[in-house]
Amino acid sequence: MRIRRSLLDLDDLDADELAYIFERTAAFERKPPGPLLKGVACVNVFFEASTRTFTSFNLAQLRLGADVINLSPRDLSLSTKGETVEDTAVTLAAMGIGVLVVRHPEVGFPQRVAMCFDGHVVNAGDGGHAHPTQALLDIYTLIDEFRNLANRTVAIVGDVEHSRVAHSTIRGLHRLGAKVVLVGPESFLPAGYAREGVVVERDFDAILPHADAVVLLRIQRERFAEMPMTDEEYIAGYRLDERRLQTLRPEAIVMHPGPYNRGMELDESVLDYAGWRYLKQVRNGVCIRMAVLDFLVNGGR
Amino acid sequence: MRIRRSLLDLDDLDADELAYIFERTAAFERKPPGPLLKGVACVNVFFEASTRTFTSFNLAQLRLGADVINLSPRDLSLSTKGETVEDTAVTLAAMGIGVLVVRHPEVGFPQRVAMCFDGHVVNAGDGGHAHPTQALLDIYTLIDEFRNLANRTVAIVGDVEHSRVAHSTIRGLHRLGAKVVLVGPESFLPAGYAREGVVVERDFDAILPHADAVVLLRIQRERFAEMPMTDEEYIAGYRLDERRLQTLRPEAIVMHPGPYNRGMELDESVLDYAGWRYLKQVRNGVCIRMAVLDFLVNGGR
Amino acid sequence: MRIRRSLLDLDDLDADELAYIFERTAAFERKPPGPLLKGVACVNVFFEASTRTFTSFNLAQLRLGADVINLSPRDLSLSTKGETVEDTAVTLAAMGIGVLVVRHPEVGFPQRVAMCFDGHVVNAGDGGHAHPTQALLDIYTLIDEFRNLANRTVAIVGDVEHSRVAHSTIRGLHRLGAKVVLVGPESFLPAGYAREGVVVERDFDAILPHADAVVLLRIQRERFAEMPMTDEEYIAGYRLDERRLQTLRPEAIVMHPGPYNRGMELDESVLDYAGWRYLKQVRNGVCIRMAVLDFLVNGGR
Repeated sequence: MRIRRSLLDLDDLDADELAYIFERTAAFERKPPGPLLKGVACVNVFFEASTRTFTSFNLAQLRLGADVINLSPRDLSLSTKGETVEDTAVTLAAMGIGVLVVRHPEVGFPQRVAMCFDGHVVNAGDGGHAHPTQALLDIYTLIDEFRNLANRTVAIVGDVEHSRVAHSTIRGLHRLGAKVVLVGPESFLPAGYAREGVVVERDFDAILPHADAVVLLRIQRERFAEMPMTDEEYIAGYRLDERRLQTLRPEAIVMHPGPYNRGMELDESVLDYAGWRYLKQVRNGVCIRMAVLDFLVNGGR
Repeated sequence: MRIRRSLLDLDDLDADELAYIFERTAAFERKPPGPLLKGVACVNVFFEASTRTFTSFNLAQLRLGADVINLSPRDLSLSTKGETVEDTAVTLAAMGIGVLVVRHPEVGFPQRVAMCFDGHVVNAGDGGHAHPTQALLDIYTLIDEFRNLANRTVAIVGDVEHSRVAHSTIRGLHRLGAKVVLVGPESFLPAGYAREGVVVERDFDAILPHADAVVLLRIQRERFAEMPMTDEEYIAGYRLDERRLQTLRPEAIVMHPGPYNRGMELDESVLDYAGWRYLKQVRNGVCIRMAVLDFLVNGGR
Repeated sequence: MRIRRSLLDLDDLDADELAYIFERTAAFERKPPGPLLKGVACVNVFFEASTRTFTSFNLAQLRLGADVINLSPRDLSLSTKGETVEDTAVTLAAMGIGVLVVRHPEVGFPQRVAMCFDGHVVNAGDGGHAHPTQALLDIYTLIDEFRNLANRTVAIVGDVEHSRVAHSTIRGLHRLGAKVVLVGPESFLPAGYAREGVVVERDFDAILPHADAVVLLRIQRERFAEMPMTDEEYIAGYRLDERRLQTLRPEAIVMHPGPYNRGMELDESVLDYAGWRYLKQVRNGVCIRMAVLDFLVNGGR
């Protein structure tokens, strides 16, 4: 049934496709493309709050000349009239909707949609599982910085367990030869990764002098019942602050998928750090999404 | 006061206009028209949940090059600052809004709006009263199938009483010479229709071998306090299932305005039935709405 | 940090700029301009209900060919993930958003946004403080009527204390040489204005024969705990009705920023009064906002 290309997780893209999307992103940054999605209807349905991803997808679609429709989940027949997800997806495709961008708290929800939707589905975040366009923009930002990621050390710090961004990014970086180190308190570090060659490290201070890039994560309080430690304990062990910044290599960069919580995973000195790349990530996000939409709809090389 | 054309119920259109809209719909399906609504501002206000109708109107407007603004009823001064509907309508017209698409649980609400709005109002569903664009697309789908509806038997099955779609469709089919049979438990069948030459039938199985088309309806649970029968009783009497499908004529078609509830008015075998026309209805809906908007704004023949 | 022009209050504009915006408004009314905001992304975030202002900004942006994105405050990371306003503003600018239109119940909120947003911010109403585009359209409507406002008497009637429109308008009219008279019960009239040469008057009937324009205000019940008088007392003293209309000069006009509450600050005879300018205000609102957006983005003379 799923004949059209969707982007549900980073694994949906092979190395060539990844390279193609990054090339196109760079090209779009240099020069905005024409209306590559002219006449293509994009529907965005976000069942969870979003500022960055929602705005970024809207902007990417508008810049490509698409017809953009935002559906509020509160107002769907899905929520109020007992229609199934599958039937909603089939219906939207029949209407001529070409692209469906979906965020949902349920793991695998975009996959369910993609099984029924005769068009392109982009996963904009499903529970704690995956968020491939965020992973793409994170990896793109790293490549833009270092060209080649082989043997570069990327420390991913904090609530890896509940971070869909981290899951997608870790696998992607691993594929590109980067040395990924997960840093955080035990309850935030999923056990499975060790088997895949990902290093797990409890001591943030030990890793800082060796990192080429530090990716900070927000604690996803909405995804668990109780903080497994006090805020003070977390801050003591894992907040990036002025003292810790000074132990970084001079050329090391710091990233964050956003939104960041000042005072928790970072303090304000990070926002002034020369290697702070958050705004670049945000900027890259629009062009990455343009490249992904163009790739799905118009095909690759 | 109401000088511009609105579409509040199917009766607003005479036979010539109906024919014109269907012709245009067919033409738009063959070849997308240019920006016929360029510079026309369309505002959609849906006071009730909608997936199909909301998306379909948005898409039709965007495809015609209109300026599209969606107002969330929660955020209107109407709801929070005591502004009347009438004053809201007058205000939107003064601003230069050309088309207002309104759905509301109150019967006659779009009519109230149209009395004050110096532009075109389209009723996208008012309570249990009318839903003319859905009726148009249902009738268009039937004509597309059978060319001439004279003496064709169309069985409308289920909660006719609370279905605004049914009310608009019944009158339209009747005008076109079809034989309309309402099928369902007594409390779901309005008494008044008998006088208009509409046949009322309690026994679904009796009508099936004679129907050219079966239009299934969702039970509109949001419009009454208590189900007048158990779900099991309803299913036993009125669910279209594999056994009942086999008693249909080979060329008979099955329709549903959507959203359908699997397991209630239909089981999954219907979704695989060769004559199942739901997706065609959905597809036709976009072009019907394009044709209606074009007709209201730019006039007919 | 704030290098780009924003419009937070009327004081942000000097006399020349005011004149330029009014000229452009008049030009846009005569002839719709081309896509002056082509490629400019505008984000609208309204933390308070709005019909007029929200629709008017959307329409102005669409007519200027901008890319328009409406963010629902309920769905922002700001509200649900503890992101600060400042970080949200920085993020939207990094994404390439050029214009941010903000309404918020908190006084000074758009100012906070403008301090961080590397783009143009338009205040669409902050608490009881300011609403500069409404003030501009009110003043424009008066100038359109009287050409020169010097020595014209403008009575502003009712809940001046809680009206952000009144605050912006009073200062603007004062600058243009008009004689501003505030009329209403004591608790609705801020004391400070007397020092600025604004006349304060408790007796509505006494001022009516001398006014060139009467600006009625809605009682902003959402901004105080208890009405300082009964509705009947307010109506007796300050409702504009048929009897009071007859004491106006023949050429006097009546305005209201909307939404108006029939039966409170006005009765229905006002809506039929030859000098009732509410609909003209609404109409002017779209072109004023087009002129403001063009001025901020493309610069003035």
